[in-house]
Amino acid sequence: MKKCMFFLVIAIVFTGSVIGAQAADHLPSWNDTFAKKGIIAFVEKVTTSGSPDFVPESERIAVFDNDGTLWPENPVPFQLAYALDTLKQMTEIKPQLKKDPMVQAALSGDFSKLLEGKHHDGLMQVMALTHAGMTTGEFNTQVKNWLSSARHLRYGKPYDQLTYQPMQEVLNYLRQNGFKTFIVSGGGADFMRVWSERVYGIPPEQVIGSNALTKYELRESGPVLVKTMDSLFVDDKEGKPVGIHQFIGRRPIACFGNSDGDKAMLEYTTIQNPRPSFGLIVRHTDAEREYAYDAKPKSSGKLVEALKEAPERGWVVVDMKSDWKRVYNFEKKGVR
Amino acid sequence: MKKCMFFLVIAIVFTGSVIGAQAADHLPSWNDTFAKKGIIAFVEKVTTSGSPDFVPESERIAVFDNDGTLWPENPVPFQLAYALDTLKQMTEIKPQLKKDPMVQAALSGDFSKLLEGKHHDGLMQVMALTHAGMTTGEFNTQVKNWLSSARHLRYGKPYDQLTYQPMQEVLNYLRQNGFKTFIVSGGGADFMRVWSERVYGIPPEQVIGSNALTKYELRESGPVLVKTMDSLFVDDKEGKPVGIHQFIGRRPIACFGNSDGDKAMLEYTTIQNPRPSFGLIVRHTDAEREYAYDAKPKSSGKLVEALKEAPERGWVVVDMKSDWKRVYNFEKKGVR
Repeated sequence: MKKCMFFLVIAIVFTGSVIGAQAADHLPSWNDTFAKKGIIAFVEKVTTSGSPDFVPESERIAVFDNDGTLWPENPVPFQLAYALDTLKQMTEIKPQLKKDPMVQAALSGDFSKLLEGKHHDGLMQVMALTHAGMTTGEFNTQVKNWLSSARHLRYGKPYDQLTYQPMQEVLNYLRQNGFKTFIVSGGGADFMRVWSERVYGIPPEQVIGSNALTKYELRESGPVLVKTMDSLFVDDKEGKPVGIHQFIGRRPIACFGNSDGDKAMLEYTTIQNPRPSFGLIVRHTDAEREYAYDAKPKSSGKLVEALKEAPERGWVVVDMKSDWKRVYNFEKKGVR
Repeated sequence: MKKCMFFLVIAIVFTGSVIGAQAADHLPSWNDTFAKKGIIAFVEKVTTSGSPDFVPESERIAVFDNDGTLWPENPVPFQLAYALDTLKQMTEIKPQLKKDPMVQAALSGDFSKLLEGKHHDGLMQVMALTHAGMTTGEFNTQVKNWLSSARHLRYGKPYDQLTYQPMQEVLNYLRQNGFKTFIVSGGGADFMRVWSERVYGIPPEQVIGSNALTKYELRESGPVLVKTMDSLFVDDKEGKPVGIHQFIGRRPIACFGNSDGDKAMLEYTTIQNPRPSFGLIVRHTDAEREYAYDAKPKSSGKLVEALKEAPERGWVVVDMKSDWKRVYNFEKKGVR
């Protein structure tokens, strides 16, 4: 019987340690401020069975903007860096491309020229050159190759190492609590899906982004999908709730953004939602570790209207400088 | 020590019973023929860890056509029955609608008139009247109400009780083995999402169908999405692999269809797939319990080209009459 007792003790100790683990800090890169407490309070509220605020697992949908919310969008959105690097490579192989005034504008960094006109013809041309006319497989390879060689100018790191550690923790924490996490971004779905599962643990089918139709062809080598710019859908601003409905088909209960481009999906998530809901804005206030802008970003990410609306809507505003212990995983832990 | 031995025996017996349960028949409505054996062999192959055919869970994507594969499409696709019933109701409220020749054609069952012209203008008009111009919430309510009152003429049952029991078992069996099951249908995504989770266990975000854009509005009552016919995408034929890429972003490893409309997605799933793959065609051969057609369906569901291609591609062809013990759940078990 002594051995049995020994096993029993082991079992109790083990159970105890499991309970101990459950009480662990799931958001260690967050300071113990209002924002962190708000996230935890919301998750505990909707996962407490028997409570009137309980939300069944199938309805625990959380949506995250990507650029500026899960990783930076400075000095330009990373996908634009990809497009410019790729365009440069293309002109080395096909020098006649350089005769095109829009290609010249892109290579010289003249973004105002690219954005001219109602439909931003120059930018569309650069996107078409670098994102269409190849198969989805060829595009994936191209993005993978770029990610493995390109480095962010300021940090000197591969772009996919620049995700915000506090937000990675939120993604994990939500998933551990039965949430399905989706990206809902103005960035290209095909671009993000190449690395979203590896980098964020978000599978391709949970990535919603700007997209255009492909064309199916059955070739000698097998079936392929050729990327086009047809029926281009820009998943930004009012397009975000539209994209959420098109791809998910129900209202999220949690929404994380950082700019006015996320205002509509924050509204769609939190206003008159029959379920308890949560909205959060990451505010870029940290010039030292990341960037500080709000109304005046270098390229995209302007935050004015959504910030104004936040108090009325009850959206949590994260002050990157004071709310985050560290921004990136490669920083020394617990800097602040 | 004797007590320890006792617990050990209990543990072994218990483990044994678990193993026994695993060997249970997951496809009881299937006769023990080639088709059933093929499904099981495929699932066992891709889930045996250590085997060269093993496929990680995240890549176990299975796609199912709906009309004719998971439920009938006779005498007309059920969504068309919904449109016609709804149109009839609308003309009772707004009698002036009856002056429209296309509405007249629809109400008198003159489908050839609706399908005239390159863009099937009549059908599009009927779809616009019954599927657009209302909020997504209003549309959901309308579909729910219809489902609860409408009855299939031949069976006298609500439409959502007419799912094929053998295919329900396949859906469950795949999910039990770590597959994510998706619908990829020419039917409307919004229509199917109202009931797909309750009826098939397939959540809205795993339903891919024909779709059009919505328009976001922030009203006094809260945010709404108004259904339009803009950027209509028909998820059929070559549109199916296009839709799969747009919504899932990777190739399925298993595909279930029933008509030439599914040929492209069967090809996309099975030809030169770097992973082991599986294709299956449900052939309507049972006039007694369901319908028998192939080349000559009453409305949609023509099966000629895909059937011709099946042997070369290794697609399993299910003969409904001989492969299925029962078609519907409400039949007496084990009829054949």
